[in-house]
Amino acid sequence: MSAGEDERQIRKLIESWIAASNARDLPALMDMMTDDVVFMTPGRAPFGKAEFAADVGRMKSVAIDAGVEVQEIEVFGPRAYIRNHIRVELTSPGQAPKRVSGYAMSVLRKEADGRWRIARDANLVMPEQA
Amino acid sequence: MSAGEDERQIRKLIESWIAASNARDLPALMDMMTDDVVFMTPGRAPFGKAEFAADVGRMKSVAIDAGVEVQEIEVFGPRAYIRNHIRVELTSPGQAPKRVSGYAMSVLRKEADGRWRIARDANLVMPEQA
Repeated sequence: MSAGEDERQIRKLIESWIAASNARDLPALMDMMTDDVVFMTPGRAPFGKAEFAADVGRMKSVAIDAGVEVQEIEVFGPRAYIRNHIRVELTSPGQAPKRVSGYAMSVLRKEADGRWRIARDANLVMPEQA
Repeated sequence: MSAGEDERQIRKLIESWIAASNARDLPALMDMMTDDVVFMTPGRAPFGKAEFAADVGRMKSVAIDAGVEVQEIEVFGPRAYIRNHIRVELTSPGQAPKRVSGYAMSVLRKEADGRWRIARDANLVMPEQA
């Protein structure tokens, strides 16, 4: 497969990730990460798939409107890293929307089924300054 | 070169990085990053080599005592990613030490001279809660 085709699939993965986040489609999100995924966020110990799912469950009543701008994709064999700028609007029932934004870097892995998945994610998204 | 030898060199790079940070050895630090390096930190736009050097210059009077615990190294050809936990004590003249800590993920690149350098760095280090 050409690097161009891998990059195309990775862009599609990013789009699908944002769509599934906004739709709160947990099975789709789970299928886009490796079983040994590690998420890193500010002020918290790294966490995996089960804790990610618990987080999504806890946020059930919060409406999410996320958008992403891809800044870089580099593919080397069955691994890639990507850098994105992310902007998310979170709206709890009866409250004003909160905006968070920031940069993220992920390591992706092409697995045995030929699909790219998120393996490591360092997410620097923080509340926007008022 | 075996993956084991690459990993050994990467561990040495991490040790040298911490030693050079503590010694405020800017030329050594500059030589451990690629020319196109991108640093990502919370609440700030990504920045490169020149801005890193300016930061070090601005912090001239601050004593730094940094330590690192390597959590993961994965090598694939001329790229690798590493995850670390970092703890830094910063002491300005006449002030109490401030502690910051957190996790970081970097992408390393093996360059034409055979040396591994930091190419991308997402650093989630934040002030410790009192």
